[in-house]
Amino acid sequence: MNPNYHNPVAITFGAGMLERLPQVIGSRKAVLVTFPEAEGFGLTGRVRKLLGDRLAAVEPDTVPNPDVASLTEMYERFWREHGDADVVVGVGGGSALDTAKALMVGTPSGKFSELVQLLATGKPFVPARVKPLVTVPTTAGTGSEVTPWATVWDRTPGVMKKYSLHLKETWPEAAIVDPELTLSLPAGPTLAAGLDALSHALESIWNVNSNPISDTHAVAAAREVLATLPRLMKDLKNAELRSRMTLAALKAGLAFSNTKTALAHSISYDMTLHHGLPHGIARDAVLAQVFDMDLKDAPASLGEFLRGLGVSTDFAAYGVGAEEARRMVVNALDGVRGKNFIGAGAPA
Amino acid sequence: MNPNYHNPVAITFGAGMLERLPQVIGSRKAVLVTFPEAEGFGLTGRVRKLLGDRLAAVEPDTVPNPDVASLTEMYERFWREHGDADVVVGVGGGSALDTAKALMVGTPSGKFSELVQLLATGKPFVPARVKPLVTVPTTAGTGSEVTPWATVWDRTPGVMKKYSLHLKETWPEAAIVDPELTLSLPAGPTLAAGLDALSHALESIWNVNSNPISDTHAVAAAREVLATLPRLMKDLKNAELRSRMTLAALKAGLAFSNTKTALAHSISYDMTLHHGLPHGIARDAVLAQVFDMDLKDAPASLGEFLRGLGVSTDFAAYGVGAEEARRMVVNALDGVRGKNFIGAGAPA
Repeated sequence: MNPNYHNPVAITFGAGMLERLPQVIGSRKAVLVTFPEAEGFGLTGRVRKLLGDRLAAVEPDTVPNPDVASLTEMYERFWREHGDADVVVGVGGGSALDTAKALMVGTPSGKFSELVQLLATGKPFVPARVKPLVTVPTTAGTGSEVTPWATVWDRTPGVMKKYSLHLKETWPEAAIVDPELTLSLPAGPTLAAGLDALSHALESIWNVNSNPISDTHAVAAAREVLATLPRLMKDLKNAELRSRMTLAALKAGLAFSNTKTALAHSISYDMTLHHGLPHGIARDAVLAQVFDMDLKDAPASLGEFLRGLGVSTDFAAYGVGAEEARRMVVNALDGVRGKNFIGAGAPA
Repeated sequence: MNPNYHNPVAITFGAGMLERLPQVIGSRKAVLVTFPEAEGFGLTGRVRKLLGDRLAAVEPDTVPNPDVASLTEMYERFWREHGDADVVVGVGGGSALDTAKALMVGTPSGKFSELVQLLATGKPFVPARVKPLVTVPTTAGTGSEVTPWATVWDRTPGVMKKYSLHLKETWPEAAIVDPELTLSLPAGPTLAAGLDALSHALESIWNVNSNPISDTHAVAAAREVLATLPRLMKDLKNAELRSRMTLAALKAGLAFSNTKTALAHSISYDMTLHHGLPHGIARDAVLAQVFDMDLKDAPASLGEFLRGLGVSTDFAAYGVGAEEARRMVVNALDGVRGKNFIGAGAPA
């Protein structure tokens, strides 16, 4: 049990709330950091119109799962050209928001390699310069809008490392969570994002860092995803269901912003529940609030939920054999995130 | 519907967590602001021991419902003698925490009358000096540990005004919520504090400023008070029940920190529900989550809950006649808080 809960992000939630961006920005000069398709979707234009003169620049080319190679040029241009801007507005899914978080932290030299060196230590550090961040998520899943974390990959051949940026300075100042921005999201990303949110909520519950405040958010989030996602997948243009899923993802973010995740999302829920339960007695009461049933029936119920969404819960369906599956699970339990899992150390 | 939710207080919750005070204070110099009985209860001694040299001074004489007369001398001594202290630690019930919030805001002159003049305008202002506040509640009810508000009365004959201090600078930096500190609270204050928490939770729901995040906290809080308070009143030394009530009060605080209350607590719940329901359709789904029953049966159920605790829901039991009761209700609905009530404007 982790006794601490803290989430300083000022949240604005509701359909159409992107319109509040000017109030949140005030008289500051902003740089918009977003994904390439945002221009075509009309999003960049809306932000331009809303902020007028206060929009100093647009960085339109965030990429999925940003890595050192892709970030270096953007980072150095950002600090060279927009060093005097006051605030970063990140608009997009998890990757765009992660990119915005990497950009907001300025090194003395303005070189990205200096930041990577600090990240490589794995220790917190005090950044030389910081631009506060306002997040505007466009998917209902990442939760990144209310967390201080960003993942930066190093895919240099022979290196292949994952760096985690996590400073007290990287908490977003504010999040504008507008469900209307998710309305045009196609089925695939909607499903993936929804399951990501469910995963955040459940992993926040079976987590050594859980506490009663994170649990409150996580239970509300998980219940809402279980109730809403199947209906939404059949009715993608339903504004009310989009609003519920966006809110569920936000609450999942509020939960796991204080617990981190516990097991890689690739590990099936079914297995996680089976592993977790024998050693997670203290958490059973909380999980029971999610499932409204005897917990021994919860894995089957979750399996049904996933199969109903067309998601297989069988490793073999992904071409993963029994032995490899076992190894993946053992590795996941051994990893940093696995250590957060209340079932870690459980006999497999 | 208020789209904004923001609560920046860093919370530490759990039995024995007062021990974390040194970590929260760090190397800063603190002034303890507390109620006179804290010395006899051993609380002041514990803080002294925990902070050692870092405890610069103790202000031991907060009074219930602090007013201008009682605060003036303390305020002016505080800023004269402890102007160089870094942080205020408020330990006690709502009145002690309110006093700490009044002290933390420094006027240029160090005169309290200057602060009162600013409060009298009712508008936000930027204080000349601020000492960050760490709150340590000793009752499970006030919620003041996670709100930025303090009430200061002016009881000068012929004036009789209520000032509300509410600045972005008066959000506590951190709250240490340790249920053990409520273990010795007698029955009377335990009941009053518990009903206060219930009131905060329900008033946060039937509130024009409610939103889905405040609702999540409010529903969890109200359910927990309804389930716990009757058991606690029969078993005051039960640490588990004290922990649940303290957590419920904290969650109620997290809810109403963003909504404010909606109707004076003196108005009976029963009446409030009757008034609220016809005009509060949009909130029914949220209230239903509290009561697990048809909402038309909720007033009777709440009445039973209160009578079970020995609390009359009848104005006459307090010597208030029918006509006076009607006038109180009308006045309450007309007041600033009444305007937050979703039933405001309802025919009585």
